[in-house]
Amino acid sequence: MVERDLDAFLVTNALNVRWLTGFTGSNGALFVGPDEVRLVTDGRYDEQAHRQLAAAGVTAEIDITPTGPIEVVVDRLRATTTVGLEADHLVWSAVERYEEALGADRIVPTTGVIETLRQHKDAGERARLERASAIADRSLVEVLVLFDDRPTEREFAMALDHQMRLNGADDVSFETIVASGPNAALPHHRPDHRVIEPEDLVVVDFGAKVDGYGSDMTRTFVAGGRPSTQQQDLYDAVAAAQAAGVAAVRHGVDQREIDTICRSVLAEHDLAEAFIHGTGHGLGLEIHEQPILSARSVGILTAGLIVTVEPGAYLPGFGGVRVEDTVVVTDTGCVPITHCPKGLDPVAVARQLPS
Amino acid sequence: MVERDLDAFLVTNALNVRWLTGFTGSNGALFVGPDEVRLVTDGRYDEQAHRQLAAAGVTAEIDITPTGPIEVVVDRLRATTTVGLEADHLVWSAVERYEEALGADRIVPTTGVIETLRQHKDAGERARLERASAIADRSLVEVLVLFDDRPTEREFAMALDHQMRLNGADDVSFETIVASGPNAALPHHRPDHRVIEPEDLVVVDFGAKVDGYGSDMTRTFVAGGRPSTQQQDLYDAVAAAQAAGVAAVRHGVDQREIDTICRSVLAEHDLAEAFIHGTGHGLGLEIHEQPILSARSVGILTAGLIVTVEPGAYLPGFGGVRVEDTVVVTDTGCVPITHCPKGLDPVAVARQLPS
Repeated sequence: MVERDLDAFLVTNALNVRWLTGFTGSNGALFVGPDEVRLVTDGRYDEQAHRQLAAAGVTAEIDITPTGPIEVVVDRLRATTTVGLEADHLVWSAVERYEEALGADRIVPTTGVIETLRQHKDAGERARLERASAIADRSLVEVLVLFDDRPTEREFAMALDHQMRLNGADDVSFETIVASGPNAALPHHRPDHRVIEPEDLVVVDFGAKVDGYGSDMTRTFVAGGRPSTQQQDLYDAVAAAQAAGVAAVRHGVDQREIDTICRSVLAEHDLAEAFIHGTGHGLGLEIHEQPILSARSVGILTAGLIVTVEPGAYLPGFGGVRVEDTVVVTDTGCVPITHCPKGLDPVAVARQLPS
Repeated sequence: MVERDLDAFLVTNALNVRWLTGFTGSNGALFVGPDEVRLVTDGRYDEQAHRQLAAAGVTAEIDITPTGPIEVVVDRLRATTTVGLEADHLVWSAVERYEEALGADRIVPTTGVIETLRQHKDAGERARLERASAIADRSLVEVLVLFDDRPTEREFAMALDHQMRLNGADDVSFETIVASGPNAALPHHRPDHRVIEPEDLVVVDFGAKVDGYGSDMTRTFVAGGRPSTQQQDLYDAVAAAQAAGVAAVRHGVDQREIDTICRSVLAEHDLAEAFIHGTGHGLGLEIHEQPILSARSVGILTAGLIVTVEPGAYLPGFGGVRVEDTVVVTDTGCVPITHCPKGLDPVAVARQLPS
């Protein structure tokens, strides 16, 4: 606030409010004044707000109002002060109400203030992502045997999702991707009624959510466990690119460098054109957070960031391969939090999972 | 646009774009000019946009751009024209970009333009809600037997959700509510690890989603099928209020009237204070749409609206009851699209479901 010459700041994005306070209600705003912090919510969340802030060790006044935070903001600001608002979250109609109540020169648009802070995960956040990843690891291994039943993509995805919930996930992190045969050439394919055949490449990209934090991992298989030479070559190239990317992750490294390294390994295999998306991203309360690892990244990796490394290669008509792990950046390298073994043969992978 | 004196209108809310065009991509805006309609999206959705607009019979130019709709809007507007923007959806940072590109006097905030149109459902939308409701009806009946196993709320909710997906739902409409024993006194309780005991009131509020449209229904049971007198009395009062509310739904009736009728029946049973939420809402691509049926509603019900009627009574410490159906408003009354039988005994309900 000092840097930006603001007297006060109002957080209205629900995930930013949650990250700062532990409060998970659907209606909450956090007012940060020069010498006070106030959570504004409505009567439905009175008891919950007190309980969750106490559990998170957050000291803030809790204001219960049916009308939203605007009256609290107006009440707490003296005539000469300015308030920063989240310009990427507050909608125009709300801005107009603040403008009317305070005057246009007293409201200041800000972007990414809390999102930048959210990049670095503390021990509790890391523990949640580790729990979520462990559930995802185990659940995938437990459903791999289903390939023998020739399920549809949708049936396999449903079974995996249900297994994660049975294993303790609050939810899935995002809509599970199961892309088989030619569909594997589409990075964001939605599972459909295509039957997964034994000779198919199958890309499975999925995660479990625990206490708001969602994991992210991709594995690629050949359903029947007997890849063709071309399938194996494609897989080996992507796996090598992914391993090289992970090996380069370290405190102090340029974020763009991870992307460059993955691309150069794929280029050695004439697959530069087949890698049609970014290399990785942060994750936490959202499945895509800063930093983004791509050719356009600016900034360096720093210890405490948690990012994915997920190169892929996609050949229209033939299929595709993607391999993805989530890693914690450390001073000397990185530590993976996704532990499912890798390999095209589902049976061999299932046998290797560390218990 | 004529009414509002606008030369052009830009739809940026994804559900409004979907409703108008059938396009379901995560990045899409619809520009409606004086004599043209253009869908603006990016390269990922080129093929999908053409396919979905053709399937929906929508004639529009499709503009592919990496930069979003602003350059298309600037390009299509002549110096003297104004464009309406969706003030409840467009965030402040985007408004600033439009202001800079076009000038503040050429962008006009609008609210609820497309949402108002979305209230009335056509035959295709009604058919999707009917399919979703049929899946939900059947799935609930199929899992009622699980009460015998003394599941936790969370286990019962997971089983119901999985059953809906197995029965063809694309997803659930919203996070399923299973609230048992004292938890049943909390209208928005999230399923937790409480074991559902045979003597518990259990409120189950849930829906299935089919092709974007989500159903909504609530039933209340006593898990072991043997209600106490107080449980039965509470149930009978709420069921009577709900039946009276449904009986009053008809083209031309004041929306507030449905709420008033439900409340008056509950008041006759000294339960006026126990009914602590609104009586109903529209639904479709969102689970809560206009119109809202409450004491503050203004407007009349018109044929083609699809609304829920869902009074409840909540007694802290004791539990609660809610009964909810979704109905289509007609000229002479209404037609339910939720068909699961009602009653506190789960076994009796399971026996009655029409095949």
